[in-house]
Amino acid sequence: MAEEEVSNKQIILKDYVNGFPKESDMIFKTTTVKFKVPEGSNAILVKNLYLSCDPAMRFRMRKTEGSYVDSFVPGSPITGHGVAKVLDSGHPNFKKGDLVWGRSVGWEEYSLITDPETFFKIGCTNVPLSYYTGILGMPGMTAYAGFYEVCSPKEGEFIFISAASGAVGQLVGQFAKLMGCYVVGSAGTKQKIDLLKNKFGFDEAFNYKEEHDLDAALKRYFPKGIDIYFENVGGKMLDAVLLNMRLNGRIAVCGMISQYNLEQFEGIHNLVFLIIKRIRMEGFIVFDYYHLYPKFLDMVLPYIKEGKIDYVEDIVEGLESAPTALVGLFSGRNVGKQVVVVAHE
Amino acid sequence: MAEEEVSNKQIILKDYVNGFPKESDMIFKTTTVKFKVPEGSNAILVKNLYLSCDPAMRFRMRKTEGSYVDSFVPGSPITGHGVAKVLDSGHPNFKKGDLVWGRSVGWEEYSLITDPETFFKIGCTNVPLSYYTGILGMPGMTAYAGFYEVCSPKEGEFIFISAASGAVGQLVGQFAKLMGCYVVGSAGTKQKIDLLKNKFGFDEAFNYKEEHDLDAALKRYFPKGIDIYFENVGGKMLDAVLLNMRLNGRIAVCGMISQYNLEQFEGIHNLVFLIIKRIRMEGFIVFDYYHLYPKFLDMVLPYIKEGKIDYVEDIVEGLESAPTALVGLFSGRNVGKQVVVVAHE
Repeated sequence: MAEEEVSNKQIILKDYVNGFPKESDMIFKTTTVKFKVPEGSNAILVKNLYLSCDPAMRFRMRKTEGSYVDSFVPGSPITGHGVAKVLDSGHPNFKKGDLVWGRSVGWEEYSLITDPETFFKIGCTNVPLSYYTGILGMPGMTAYAGFYEVCSPKEGEFIFISAASGAVGQLVGQFAKLMGCYVVGSAGTKQKIDLLKNKFGFDEAFNYKEEHDLDAALKRYFPKGIDIYFENVGGKMLDAVLLNMRLNGRIAVCGMISQYNLEQFEGIHNLVFLIIKRIRMEGFIVFDYYHLYPKFLDMVLPYIKEGKIDYVEDIVEGLESAPTALVGLFSGRNVGKQVVVVAHE
Repeated sequence: MAEEEVSNKQIILKDYVNGFPKESDMIFKTTTVKFKVPEGSNAILVKNLYLSCDPAMRFRMRKTEGSYVDSFVPGSPITGHGVAKVLDSGHPNFKKGDLVWGRSVGWEEYSLITDPETFFKIGCTNVPLSYYTGILGMPGMTAYAGFYEVCSPKEGEFIFISAASGAVGQLVGQFAKLMGCYVVGSAGTKQKIDLLKNKFGFDEAFNYKEEHDLDAALKRYFPKGIDIYFENVGGKMLDAVLLNMRLNGRIAVCGMISQYNLEQFEGIHNLVFLIIKRIRMEGFIVFDYYHLYPKFLDMVLPYIKEGKIDYVEDIVEGLESAPTALVGLFSGRNVGKQVVVVAHE
């Protein structure tokens, strides 16, 4: 029997990117894909449904060595987290029709996945499938590991979250509220501030773009200081936070999106407060915590079903919308988790 | 009976200090002191023997709020760690003749100490008494707590120590060697480098003043990267270290002496490596670990007696030498722990 080939639209990275990524750094291409996994391979062939746009993908757009992820390959499709349906499987754990999510889905209609063991099979489907790019996927696990495992939070503590309406921040804030903490978030538009206060139940929120003096803003919302800072942005916000940390404070360094497109990272001047206030500042990567995923689902699925946690997604339709969506992350265009729909099923 | 008064030479801080401290920021004064503790007080009157010059005293020379130590009082004697002999006591735990060390000895011949409960009674006296300003005092406990409690060291790990011949660094290096680590130190003179390699048994040492490219120097000594950085200096060295940390590395932030005299701290540009390499960076203060002091003595006294640990002190004679000794810390003039002898007994 001749192997069926079908057309496969892709989004290709043209070359390594300097500065802010632009839509023109990516091009469309239509190629073909065989509709079966190669004989004897343990790969899976999937139809991609939802693609995730994540700030950390910026690292992969430059030539990096020694990072925790490989660079993208210029001339090849962008890859990232996504939700997909198995069309054919050479792997004993997966069968046709399975829904999966994982970290190495191509930005294309169909992907041949050669490391299916890194994928999770989706069990619970009475939630939006796109949630597996967000609250039930990598960003959800990032919020869970970062908050509960890295921040060592205690009831009643004062928590500050930057990029607080983003895919991770909105969850950290809600976890912290459920624990009985005082929670303040920063974001960059009025709409996001409204979300933080009115939808996610943050105690306070402020638009960092409207604050000329971030130190003064933090002092206004944290007259007694900050116990935990969930760091998503870096740069000037981090410097202002360091001035406002409490004794034995913790800073979970999840991301520094303000820095990713700079030729040289901004200087942070106030690290001496790490000593004065005995602060623990810790970088983490969600991949180190994926063994906790079942435990995380046990906690978060009931919260979703009981309406105790909300999740806001910014969903765009069509693979062709993906470059704009990805680029938009770095200007804060997205409101909530940025998702691209390639196909609904 | 009339209360006896004796003359008491003192070293007074003239005013808060900006920039590098100078000898002229301190003045001599001779006053008198009553030779008995006030009736009904639980203070102790001590004769000061050894005074400790510590980089962290720089913080107290400026007007600070919210720090872990109070500012010095302009017009009053400088205070710091020291070894003293009890002349009179209103406190049940201390009696005349006791030797003590603690953190609030005045820079003067005699001090009335109103918080004797913060002092340790010296038990073991078959070591130099000056050791209680160094290896058996605050710097020793700093090295012990910083290395064993903050760094989470493991045999065979790669350790880098800056200001490595100083009061704390020389001990951290020897503790690390005793644990079977690979240890490299940096310092600022040939004499110090020789000490590190030939007396303290560091595997390697380099003079940071002779390295135009600190990143390249670290890559030379750590081709596989650094597991633990014991941070004493801050600034450019920290930035270079961040580029060379290994996965799951730890940075114990003990001090940042290169920054203490600057109007604005230098910017640190490479904190994004905290994420990429999952680094924990933690500031600590020795005062939080003093409950471990008996355990520390149990470990370190045998090491001293068996010759497994050396300790180098830079001892100057006479209270009048104290300002020069203190100021010298910030140009790296001292070789080893800087001590001032006020009286030998």
